[in-house]
Amino acid sequence: MATMKEVAELAGVSTATVSHVVNGTKKLSPETTERVLTAIQQANYTPNTLAKSLRSGQTHTIGVLVEDIRGLPVPEIVSGISETLAVSGYRMLLYDLHLLEKLYNQYEQIVAYRDRINTGAAALHQAHVDGIIYVGMHDRHLDQLFDPMQKPLVFAYSHGTQQDSCVTYANHDSAKALTQYLIGKGHRRIAVIAGHPHSYPTIMRLEGYREAMAEASLDVPEAYIRYGDWESDSGRARTLELLECKERPTAIFAMNDLMAAGSIRALAEAGLRVPGDVAVAGFDNREIARYLNPPLTTVALPTAEIGMRAAKRILSRIQNPDSPPQREIVECSIIERESV
Amino acid sequence: MATMKEVAELAGVSTATVSHVVNGTKKLSPETTERVLTAIQQANYTPNTLAKSLRSGQTHTIGVLVEDIRGLPVPEIVSGISETLAVSGYRMLLYDLHLLEKLYNQYEQIVAYRDRINTGAAALHQAHVDGIIYVGMHDRHLDQLFDPMQKPLVFAYSHGTQQDSCVTYANHDSAKALTQYLIGKGHRRIAVIAGHPHSYPTIMRLEGYREAMAEASLDVPEAYIRYGDWESDSGRARTLELLECKERPTAIFAMNDLMAAGSIRALAEAGLRVPGDVAVAGFDNREIARYLNPPLTTVALPTAEIGMRAAKRILSRIQNPDSPPQREIVECSIIERESV
Repeated sequence: MATMKEVAELAGVSTATVSHVVNGTKKLSPETTERVLTAIQQANYTPNTLAKSLRSGQTHTIGVLVEDIRGLPVPEIVSGISETLAVSGYRMLLYDLHLLEKLYNQYEQIVAYRDRINTGAAALHQAHVDGIIYVGMHDRHLDQLFDPMQKPLVFAYSHGTQQDSCVTYANHDSAKALTQYLIGKGHRRIAVIAGHPHSYPTIMRLEGYREAMAEASLDVPEAYIRYGDWESDSGRARTLELLECKERPTAIFAMNDLMAAGSIRALAEAGLRVPGDVAVAGFDNREIARYLNPPLTTVALPTAEIGMRAAKRILSRIQNPDSPPQREIVECSIIERESV
Repeated sequence: MATMKEVAELAGVSTATVSHVVNGTKKLSPETTERVLTAIQQANYTPNTLAKSLRSGQTHTIGVLVEDIRGLPVPEIVSGISETLAVSGYRMLLYDLHLLEKLYNQYEQIVAYRDRINTGAAALHQAHVDGIIYVGMHDRHLDQLFDPMQKPLVFAYSHGTQQDSCVTYANHDSAKALTQYLIGKGHRRIAVIAGHPHSYPTIMRLEGYREAMAEASLDVPEAYIRYGDWESDSGRARTLELLECKERPTAIFAMNDLMAAGSIRALAEAGLRVPGDVAVAGFDNREIARYLNPPLTTVALPTAEIGMRAAKRILSRIQNPDSPPQREIVECSIIERESV
């Protein structure tokens, strides 16, 4: 293995000049640059940079393809990814699909953006990343959405096919735990304001809720299960409907904090006390949860942990490309405030 | 200029193989890779990738150094940057300084992280970025914080020295406009809950407020100016103090939405109506502003616009390294809700 000094001698320049070419730290004449590059080639010198990447085919760069950096869990997941990559000497190339306004709350429409996603993946590919982490805004299956690719791919806060690795959170178990928490507080008539009926989190969380209710031998009248659209107004409207029930529920589990905010608003408008008359629990632990009146009891997503694990997973896939795909489900935690 | 076909003939491989080497799309034997790289060198072929970067010294990659991707304005600024870079065929390497918990609301402590910042800048440098955008979490001067560097640098949502380009928002004018808005609504006794007294936004916004009051020939009793710490609890405590004033203010301008939330809470606790008895206005237009009771009238920061302009600025600095530094100040807008 040649040294920088040998390259400098071969090119007839100083080692500082070689260093400038290798690290791009100073603009040199095209002639000098070319002389140094030729000497690097002749001496088979592999500096720890572009030229090395060109030889090894590895850039120590991970592509992070985000549905939208502004989407609720994304900055915290990206933060976890970048922290872990930095420790391992890897860099992060960020590609933003800018889907926040396009998807709005119609997360299942992601298939309409197949081309956009594959363009993003191809751009990262072109940039010679060693692997790609896909970060969703909403936990759901993204089967067959990606064109076949040669690089390792890990899904964070989303799922691919059975052949793909993913790291996401425990939808079913968190909803079950939250329902058990409400039961533990003495509630027997517990209603749900779910998200869109065909959404993966809705389905999984409803299952968790029903399981907890069944295990406690509690009834679930169908009128207690209402579907909103993840927005505050729908939480308000569904709550007003729930107040019409013959046996009014004593607790409402809203499947996100925005719908819980609407629910609290509807209860205040109806002159009911939270939690005195009706308890309300949310999901997500958004910033607003702390500032609602009363502050909202909710479920915190393990966003940083998902990011850190996704980064570890992609590095392990790069080192062992033939290792079997892994599906990691991270636990959530209940944040107790004053609404239950 | 050689073509890929000539390189393939020279190396005795197919053009598909050359393409795989150039784009890193398939793992080939070291021998084949080396043969192709040598042919690329001999033919003076410049594919649009690493090899081209190695020759030109340009990577079409911008380094974005963020104080913390989780910090309030940062994701929206980064979104604006990435949108503009993508259109121009540039990539974004993100380096996160992870300062959210470290700085908390003590933004002036940034100087303690000088080494961390320069390590980040050096890492981006090593990665051969063509320029760097620094994205702050809080608008302030970062004089002399960066070691001298050869690459173009633009500050977003922050300032460097007079020699640096920056893109940020109009602190002074926005506070003046908001005060004028309150005056326009008939308020004469307008109090302020400021942030830390030595913070740049506090100083600039106070100036804007005083200017608007003076131009309307309105008194500013010193008791009407209170300093919080940007957190909700301080907004609550300062509001309780303001309610002790002999002439109670009819409007409170809190310098961020969190302090405004605390202010609204204190007024509710005191049995006063918002805006009937006391109007409250905030600053930032965080998500919570929509969900407070009543929804908060506040100032929206032009975050996406700052990101887009910072990206355009860095590209123009790269094309014209000798152009003079530019300081761009983007207007904010007042979001009218129900608290005034």
